Amino acid sequence: MEYRQFLQIPGPTNIPDRILRELSRPMINHRGPELKKLVAEVVEGLKEVFRTNNDILIFPSSGSGVLESAIANLFSPGDTVVCASIGVFSERMATIAERYKLNVKRIKKEWGKTITPEDVKEVLKKDKGKVIKAVIVPHNETTTGVTCDIEGISKIIKEMDHPALFIVDAVSSLAITKLETDAWNIDVVITASQKGLMLPPGMGLVSISSKGWEYYKESTMPRWYWDYKAVKDKIKANQFPYTPPTTLLFGLKEALNMLLEEGMERVWERHGVIAKAVRNSVRAMGLELLADEKDASNVVTAVKLPESINYKDLSELLRKKYNVVIGGGLGQLEGKIFRIGHLGAISYLDVYAVMGAVEMALYELGYKLKLGEASKILAETFVNIVL
Amino acid sequence: MEYRQFLQIPGPTNIPDRILRELSRPMINHRGPELKKLVAEVVEGLKEVFRTNNDILIFPSSGSGVLESAIANLFSPGDTVVCASIGVFSERMATIAERYKLNVKRIKKEWGKTITPEDVKEVLKKDKGKVIKAVIVPHNETTTGVTCDIEGISKIIKEMDHPALFIVDAVSSLAITKLETDAWNIDVVITASQKGLMLPPGMGLVSISSKGWEYYKESTMPRWYWDYKAVKDKIKANQFPYTPPTTLLFGLKEALNMLLEEGMERVWERHGVIAKAVRNSVRAMGLELLADEKDASNVVTAVKLPESINYKDLSELLRKKYNVVIGGGLGQLEGKIFRIGHLGAISYLDVYAVMGAVEMALYELGYKLKLGEASKILAETFVNIVL
Amino acid sequence: MEYRQFLQIPGPTNIPDRILRELSRPMINHRGPELKKLVAEVVEGLKEVFRTNNDILIFPSSGSGVLESAIANLFSPGDTVVCASIGVFSERMATIAERYKLNVKRIKKEWGKTITPEDVKEVLKKDKGKVIKAVIVPHNETTTGVTCDIEGISKIIKEMDHPALFIVDAVSSLAITKLETDAWNIDVVITASQKGLMLPPGMGLVSISSKGWEYYKESTMPRWYWDYKAVKDKIKANQFPYTPPTTLLFGLKEALNMLLEEGMERVWERHGVIAKAVRNSVRAMGLELLADEKDASNVVTAVKLPESINYKDLSELLRKKYNVVIGGGLGQLEGKIFRIGHLGAISYLDVYAVMGAVEMALYELGYKLKLGEASKILAETFVNIVL
Amino acid sequence: MEYRQFLQIPGPTNIPDRILRELSRPMINHRGPELKKLVAEVVEGLKEVFRTNNDILIFPSSGSGVLESAIANLFSPGDTVVCASIGVFSERMATIAERYKLNVKRIKKEWGKTITPEDVKEVLKKDKGKVIKAVIVPHNETTTGVTCDIEGISKIIKEMDHPALFIVDAVSSLAITKLETDAWNIDVVITASQKGLMLPPGMGLVSISSKGWEYYKESTMPRWYWDYKAVKDKIKANQFPYTPPTTLLFGLKEALNMLLEEGMERVWERHGVIAKAVRNSVRAMGLELLADEKDASNVVTAVKLPESINYKDLSELLRKKYNVVIGGGLGQLEGKIFRIGHLGAISYLDVYAVMGAVEMALYELGYKLKLGEASKILAETFVNIVL
Repeated sequence: MEYRQFLQIPGPTNIPDRILRELSRPMINHRGPELKKLVAEVVEGLKEVFRTNNDILIFPSSGSGVLESAIANLFSPGDTVVCASIGVFSERMATIAERYKLNVKRIKKEWGKTITPEDVKEVLKKDKGKVIKAVIVPHNETTTGVTCDIEGISKIIKEMDHPALFIVDAVSSLAITKLETDAWNIDVVITASQKGLMLPPGMGLVSISSKGWEYYKESTMPRWYWDYKAVKDKIKANQFPYTPPTTLLFGLKEALNMLLEEGMERVWERHGVIAKAVRNSVRAMGLELLADEKDASNVVTAVKLPESINYKDLSELLRKKYNVVIGGGLGQLEGKIFRIGHLGAISYLDVYAVMGAVEMALYELGYKLKLGEASKILAETFVNIVL
Repeated sequence: MEYRQFLQIPGPTNIPDRILRELSRPMINHRGPELKKLVAEVVEGLKEVFRTNNDILIFPSSGSGVLESAIANLFSPGDTVVCASIGVFSERMATIAERYKLNVKRIKKEWGKTITPEDVKEVLKKDKGKVIKAVIVPHNETTTGVTCDIEGISKIIKEMDHPALFIVDAVSSLAITKLETDAWNIDVVITASQKGLMLPPGMGLVSISSKGWEYYKESTMPRWYWDYKAVKDKIKANQFPYTPPTTLLFGLKEALNMLLEEGMERVWERHGVIAKAVRNSVRAMGLELLADEKDASNVVTAVKLPESINYKDLSELLRKKYNVVIGGGLGQLEGKIFRIGHLGAISYLDVYAVMGAVEMALYELGYKLKLGEASKILAETFVNIVL
Repeated sequence: MEYRQFLQIPGPTNIPDRILRELSRPMINHRGPELKKLVAEVVEGLKEVFRTNNDILIFPSSGSGVLESAIANLFSPGDTVVCASIGVFSERMATIAERYKLNVKRIKKEWGKTITPEDVKEVLKKDKGKVIKAVIVPHNETTTGVTCDIEGISKIIKEMDHPALFIVDAVSSLAITKLETDAWNIDVVITASQKGLMLPPGMGLVSISSKGWEYYKESTMPRWYWDYKAVKDKIKANQFPYTPPTTLLFGLKEALNMLLEEGMERVWERHGVIAKAVRNSVRAMGLELLADEKDASNVVTAVKLPESINYKDLSELLRKKYNVVIGGGLGQLEGKIFRIGHLGAISYLDVYAVMGAVEMALYELGYKLKLGEASKILAETFVNIVL
Repeated sequence: MEYRQFLQIPGPTNIPDRILRELSRPMINHRGPELKKLVAEVVEGLKEVFRTNNDILIFPSSGSGVLESAIANLFSPGDTVVCASIGVFSERMATIAERYKLNVKRIKKEWGKTITPEDVKEVLKKDKGKVIKAVIVPHNETTTGVTCDIEGISKIIKEMDHPALFIVDAVSSLAITKLETDAWNIDVVITASQKGLMLPPGMGLVSISSKGWEYYKESTMPRWYWDYKAVKDKIKANQFPYTPPTTLLFGLKEALNMLLEEGMERVWERHGVIAKAVRNSVRAMGLELLADEKDASNVVTAVKLPESINYKDLSELLRKKYNVVIGGGLGQLEGKIFRIGHLGAISYLDVYAVMGAVEMALYELGYKLKLGEASKILAETFVNIVL
């Protein structure tokens, strides 16, 4: 028997049936009036989700592609940028920048720690000549389940009156964790379809400020596909410079309907409540969290594996017996942690089930815990929530 | 946000996505070669699920329709039949029989009790003249969550050498609870699409033995739509006397694939394990079950409502906050019980979630219980299952 | 390669993708608030399509089932009814009535001819004692592609002040050919899902007038499933006496959206234009139509097979080479005609393709015709249509 | 009423329902065993479609993205390449190469003309120093509906023993026009999902030979996302360096099933027959084709607009009245031609309908033609085809 799966990795997420049905729509002309209408509608909706009046750019691409797009559009070889490096995905951005011959100043932390406004302040303070062209920070590092204080970092940059562009990798945080693009003066926000937007992978999204466009003008990098101006000009006319991922646009429209029906504040709040309850239930199992509570992510929770437990055993038992798919440790954390995604169309009962499965699977693998404790903790949280 | 719903009524059930996709197939000619191939395949598969070599008849109909079909095809006004009456659906069959002027001898029990082989023995013993033309029993009474011992009743009829036709209402039990049509000499088995077959409602199914066909010949009831012979003759040619529910046949083929991939013995066993765990978790909440443990159903569990709890409050809280849909009491049980369906594509984790939701909702409504206890009981069962 | 098929039988029809997607919706509770809302909406929409304020009843059933329902609800054994008998489906109604021991007065015509108001007048005139309880006429006889003048017959009944109930079998005409239930005083209109409503088969629909309800009260027929009063009472509360065909209700809502967006007058007009163009193209091939032009149906066109052409050869060539599925002759017309359905979501270009395929296939089978003539005739019609 | 649309642009194509249903599958883990199995299967199938044993690389990208990927992976600034420039898409490749500071030698032709093996010979002959690093040719230029003789060009390169890499833009020709990657020594074949593969846009595909990999080693271009080696290494393990377009992989598996069931030779032959018939029907309308018959494409046919006809009028009439979507002229051909795509899951009857619609629409707009002539010409072709 094939049961419905709980896909609890930090993206792609479980896709709601409202969106799945849209994905099976017949194809339309990418230069015709139906597409133009669709583009106009989704751009409008995206602005509400990004909380911005900046330009929104859409690419057929994974999240990594749009990370690269920012480097290829906004800088030139030899430019200096500050990059957080606190996990696979923030380090990936630094690596991409180096591939393009940027001079990358990493703010490196032990994996599991976050980048604070203070960290940024320190780096900028030393930059007497104001050569730093950009500060690039992930809103959420999915490798470790850590959030960066984007609002705080934004304030520091402003406070120090530093001219650096502020670029936020919000691939895994948009429509999950509070992000105020305009209010927080974020010049470039980068995201992708398969996380908070609850869509299949294959679409990258970027918002860019007028200051960002100034940077664009200076850039000498080779590019055609990623060229921001070409995409902007076409999207202004509700078109694309090349064939867009039409099917994902069908889905995006419905995803935006769902998010805006709920309201962004409630979306953020729901993720916050659930993430906190997950962490509490992890502690109730006697397990240790990778991240400090104050930095912990609303997207994904990284849990240290008990010494006695092998990740492969745990994930296979969860998948085969309980239909729960979790994520493992990446890079240096491989075999040391497991990760539970709790993003997208996630309900209280979904995490109740998922954490129950984790508890049962750990128990079955010989880990000592009191069955039912995790559920009790979650229940104690959820019964107090008033809809 | 719209989350995936746990549809825990005793049918229709949650439809697996494998089946949902089949329902969106383009329409085909009901007299063409594709349909003929499809009919041949589903009839073959149904025989494995019904465990029979008898004829299988398919109707565009709800379950109640095929109940009526048995009366309209096998009897004549004035015929005497024995009907169990232990809930809404078994009583419905008795009522239908009376509408057709049959002389109905009810074996009536308090709702929540089952009909035993002894009960049937007693009635048949008194039937010196062997005027009783049929014994009609529900395999599962969904009103109360009670199972009848079909094998035992079959043995009694045989033992007493009574000529009565044995008709089993398996609408809510087929592909859930062990049923051996041929080995148990069941002449007529009646079922419908929206229960163990995991399909939408709209298709009724009947298996009928050669003894059943003898009865058919004697019947003087008016009928055209329900006429068994017309359907049999057409199905033999992989056709229908009128337009069949083609979309449900698409789904049925996939449902049969899923059931036969798992194997009927495992399907029955899974439902048994889950039902028992549900009952244990109900008891862990301090609640009382309607049925005795020995009679309890693998399909649905009926739970007595605590005095302090109003059914409407409970079901609305479950639906709105936890996305769990349960059933209420029907007829004389309205307001006195609630019912949890656990049939079809149901997994361990599904019931873990559902019972957790029930526990939380009861708690929120002021019922005194220890949060997490239900989950603990379920966990203690599931951790011991080896796949 | 599997191409999209042109399903040109007189129902089931090609299902629009808007409706197909609805059919894959997850199941819902048939006693819950979502279903109640859905029932209220579809009943409202159906009244606009039926053009009536009468009660609308919905059954899980094929069209034949709801034909039988009228007999089982409105009459008693020995009652006299007038039935048209001009093809398989009108004769089926007469047969059903006889199964229920009605005294059936057939108005019989050679297949291919219609029943006129004059025919009805003649029968009613002879009925001095006014024993005739009902006049039952098909709006469209799909066996022969013939329409009956329902408005005219209605006027005759009124003119003669005859008390007979007027029952119209609109299974294959509703939402295709103009039908004004209330304005034409039709007491009972019977239809099904798989024709003008563009849905899969499996749902029967009935509208019934207050005069019809008077008849209901007198009826002594055995019935439970088909009982009109039980269905009416439940539908008034947006429910059903037994599990409804939920999936078809999802589809029905979208079908009604599509019909009412277009507007019933335009729906009828479109079918009329297309049917006429089909007939003209048939004549352009030198073929003979079964029906007289004045009686010809907007639903389906029956064409006499040229002597040299075998139906099986024609239909297989059309299906395998051109992906066009047509219907054959039924009963006495088997092997003598072929039938082309042109109902539902049918466009000008669909019939252009279909008739082109028919022309090519006939040519390939050796029938003498001028290739392109059929298309020319259709083109001459369509170029003059202003949208 | 919304009818099914004939999407007759040169890609994206009409998506068969078999594929549409796959697109609505629930999401899976991009690092889990289901995805690995899927990748292994599609790579195997792609090799049969590409006719190669070379490595296959898959990208979340439009076709333009994978064009750029070849430049970014195989060359360094200052390298000399030969590029065909005979339309928007071949010129796009030259432009991309220039953006990356390549020295581009264009073989330019009037739009509507093809690049011949002789043209390539001439250029290579002059290249005494063998500085030319690559010859880049489109298999099909969709702007003009022109095919290049890839086999012939391959032979010339071999005959001249020139070391240039042979790169073919097969975005719009793969699985449409005969292409023998290995037999014709094509080092790099570039394609995308939304053409012959009958999928939605969003996936780019590349095959690369061992000679190609030698080039890769020399390249100094900045890149991360497009890096061929990273993708190759991951795909060897049935994974991806970043989240793949999972939904399109579901669809790709079914698309490959469909193509390989039909057989590549038959797929190519079918497109050839249909394209030729389309051109003949265009001539029958008295219209002029842009391309010479010997160069004409199996993918798309470009037709010169009659002086009296405005493209916008024509395309809107076709879309609104006949549900046919055609393409217009791009760049310098805007307003001068219209283009009819005939690729993918295209049947004889589809083009019969489409060309009929074109004929009717032109007539309605005042162009003088004999209605039915186009259909006659198509019919004369199709009746002679034996399946």
